[in-house]
Amino acid sequence: MRDIYIYNTLSRKKELFEPVSKGMAGIYVCGPTVYGDAHLGHARPAITYDVLVRLLREEGYKVRYVRNITDVGHLENDADSGEDKIEKKARLEQLEPMEIAQYYTIRYHRAMDKLNTVPPSIEPRASGHIIEQISLVQKILDSGYAYISNGSVYFDVRKYNTDHKYGVLSGRVIDDMISNTRTLDGQDDKHFPLDFALWKKASPEHIMRWPSPWSDGFPGWHLECSAMSEKYLGREFDIHGGGMDLMFPHHECELAQNTASRGCGGVKYWMHNNMITINGQKMGKSYGNFITLEELFTGNHKLLAQAYSPMTIRFFILQAHYRSTLDFSNEALAAAEKGLKRLMQACRDVMKLTADEGAPSIAEIAENREKIFSALCDDLNTPVAIAHLYELVRLVNQIKDKTSKINAEDLGLLRDSFKDIVMDILGLEDEQAESENAGMFDKVIEMVLEVRRQAKKNKDYATSDKIRDRLSEAGITIKDTKEGTEWSI
Amino acid sequence: MRDIYIYNTLSRKKELFEPVSKGMAGIYVCGPTVYGDAHLGHARPAITYDVLVRLLREEGYKVRYVRNITDVGHLENDADSGEDKIEKKARLEQLEPMEIAQYYTIRYHRAMDKLNTVPPSIEPRASGHIIEQISLVQKILDSGYAYISNGSVYFDVRKYNTDHKYGVLSGRVIDDMISNTRTLDGQDDKHFPLDFALWKKASPEHIMRWPSPWSDGFPGWHLECSAMSEKYLGREFDIHGGGMDLMFPHHECELAQNTASRGCGGVKYWMHNNMITINGQKMGKSYGNFITLEELFTGNHKLLAQAYSPMTIRFFILQAHYRSTLDFSNEALAAAEKGLKRLMQACRDVMKLTADEGAPSIAEIAENREKIFSALCDDLNTPVAIAHLYELVRLVNQIKDKTSKINAEDLGLLRDSFKDIVMDILGLEDEQAESENAGMFDKVIEMVLEVRRQAKKNKDYATSDKIRDRLSEAGITIKDTKEGTEWSI
Repeated sequence: MRDIYIYNTLSRKKELFEPVSKGMAGIYVCGPTVYGDAHLGHARPAITYDVLVRLLREEGYKVRYVRNITDVGHLENDADSGEDKIEKKARLEQLEPMEIAQYYTIRYHRAMDKLNTVPPSIEPRASGHIIEQISLVQKILDSGYAYISNGSVYFDVRKYNTDHKYGVLSGRVIDDMISNTRTLDGQDDKHFPLDFALWKKASPEHIMRWPSPWSDGFPGWHLECSAMSEKYLGREFDIHGGGMDLMFPHHECELAQNTASRGCGGVKYWMHNNMITINGQKMGKSYGNFITLEELFTGNHKLLAQAYSPMTIRFFILQAHYRSTLDFSNEALAAAEKGLKRLMQACRDVMKLTADEGAPSIAEIAENREKIFSALCDDLNTPVAIAHLYELVRLVNQIKDKTSKINAEDLGLLRDSFKDIVMDILGLEDEQAESENAGMFDKVIEMVLEVRRQAKKNKDYATSDKIRDRLSEAGITIKDTKEGTEWSI
Repeated sequence: MRDIYIYNTLSRKKELFEPVSKGMAGIYVCGPTVYGDAHLGHARPAITYDVLVRLLREEGYKVRYVRNITDVGHLENDADSGEDKIEKKARLEQLEPMEIAQYYTIRYHRAMDKLNTVPPSIEPRASGHIIEQISLVQKILDSGYAYISNGSVYFDVRKYNTDHKYGVLSGRVIDDMISNTRTLDGQDDKHFPLDFALWKKASPEHIMRWPSPWSDGFPGWHLECSAMSEKYLGREFDIHGGGMDLMFPHHECELAQNTASRGCGGVKYWMHNNMITINGQKMGKSYGNFITLEELFTGNHKLLAQAYSPMTIRFFILQAHYRSTLDFSNEALAAAEKGLKRLMQACRDVMKLTADEGAPSIAEIAENREKIFSALCDDLNTPVAIAHLYELVRLVNQIKDKTSKINAEDLGLLRDSFKDIVMDILGLEDEQAESENAGMFDKVIEMVLEVRRQAKKNKDYATSDKIRDRLSEAGITIKDTKEGTEWSI
């Protein structure tokens, strides 16, 4: 096992990864709220933490990877008011909320499969853990950091802030926020604007509701992650990942809930991926500028110049460091497509190379392999890893062009490196295998038509007619035009 | 909407389907216990109720199709003792039970996708509905048909049987069973052997446990279906499906729970598919004679003579009526494969037929179409429907062979019939589309090699060499041998 360094949002520096239990890694990642199709902004955390899981497994860790499905409690304005996002969608489409959740969960899984992300070890649903969430609310009430108001329960941020520091994760100076915020005028159940809901009393028309000691209602959005991460990963676990937009209020509240109920923050390493932007603006469902993954895969969106394959999207995301913003453009995606093509060609070529017995050892294979792993272990620095990977691509091309030779041992290491890094850790699949066969077919047909043209020129009509008839039997129609011969299946 | 008749296990006769709400159909089907791979015995209910859902939708019903995932509470011996099946698997593999459930849920979904079954509208998990189950236990306690014993809660079968009839669904004469059964000797928490668990107190090492008014424990196996069907389909809903092996005790207990808590059986039509047998014996995980779907798809099992495609399995199952037993054999599957091939060929051929303007109308198209729908609406009589479908296949072949002619209107109806029946209702997909393209490629290459042979015979070496070189460029190697020319990619 190599040393792995992770940038911890909590300490704002890279730290050596030292898991709670030797050889094990417990990871919790915030998954989707299932009320719409996954977009490019969902692909980034999915792929980032997928590479983390793959790297840890490659390094020999036994990984338990938990990613939740939010199917209740996420209100429209991400604060504590507005309609539940899923209930609203269900109401508009005249369906039961769980039909909406099921529909978009299936579509999310399909999109994630296309992106070749490994499924989580456990995928808990918020609605499936109401008991655990009610028990957590009770613990926070018992610890004195929450209050009941009209059947709802709220987290008491001011009280918590006097004993602990609210804002440690996001770096917000909450004291200032508190002193700058006027108390509420009594229209709200909250005592104070920064307080957040742990349990909400359901209005009469609300469908998703469960009995609790305080009211028939539903859990607050932040609660599920505290409850389910503790259930499946323990009181203190290793890594919590998510998008930077979740840092505040979601993760800040989660950390406060953990501290109030368990007496510790619960998470050793908080990781946050940066946003994908379009013309510098965050991409998100609530911004209306999002492109769904399906639209990207089909090219069916006004902002798209073409379709981009799942692996192009994956490579595009990996070409940037996860903590940098990544701006969407057709140019950048086309460049990723081109770079990926070169890389995958090398993956195929390396398998076809032959070893030369007398060839001297090539030190740069092991060197680059080590640089790549170092970069990956250095807070998942995929762009640096990919740069070194291209050194290996260059080497493959030299050997293919016979400007270099390679011995059997080196060739073995080179092949292993492509497999370990490209396939196993970066998770890139060869999408061209199929389209390559299609290309082969095209070439054969073009050749056949050329032979036919030549036969006609030689007045060998027996041959030219035979070719036309046999193609037709096989299901291929040809048509002679002024510009040449067209063919179709 | 045609009249649909369903054999109701409860009345032991076919009944006209009259839904609770006009135009809507609520269906609940017992899904898998996720502790092992899906086998042929799981494919049958999945495909049977899939065709039911497809037929109802084709007839214009708005269908809510609920199929559960059992991830807790199903004990080893299907009665109330032994270890939880999922916990046992988790213990053997040193995993958390939810990791086992997730692993096999994903594999189940993949197998179901291959069989082209439509996903359920809602797929509730037993572990995600503990509150609903606890509330149901409380209702049954309140109604007097359950008792608490050492922290567990049991259904009081004798008490229930005095007021209602226990055994109405399975047709067992419970009075005889009761009088023939000696009371327990006190080693069991149950008062009486036929009583069944509603809530089980968890032993200290048991992982899956939740707080309840009676103990930290887990729900009895039968409880989830009563609780979740009521939650998502209402107090009384239309159709409950499942395998015949679930009729007793599972569905019998479910019906008793419903009656004890809701005051009615809850289900209008109980449907049960018969079993798949191997040499006359039921196929099941607990019998050790099961063949998983993956093994069938790959042919990787000692009982299998070859691999069988998902659509062959689907067609094999549809060739028998769902209430008949279906005996597994390689011969029967090979016959299904052949029959399917003929059917799919007709599906492709019908699209290529051309209409003849003057052709007289062919009455048997509409007649057979109607016979097929009548058979399907007659308690899903798929074998009769398929027999009539072959009449349409015969017609397609006659027109293809030019022994019959068809006018445009009839051709439209014929095409629609294949689409509506084969694709939409029977849910058969064309698996040959891909392999047909492969066949096309083979034909072209054979023709190219023949042209090359002819060129060589004519001493036109420019052409024969050009063909060899261009094939090689395209990635196809040819080798001249005594027997002829071999080619490979």
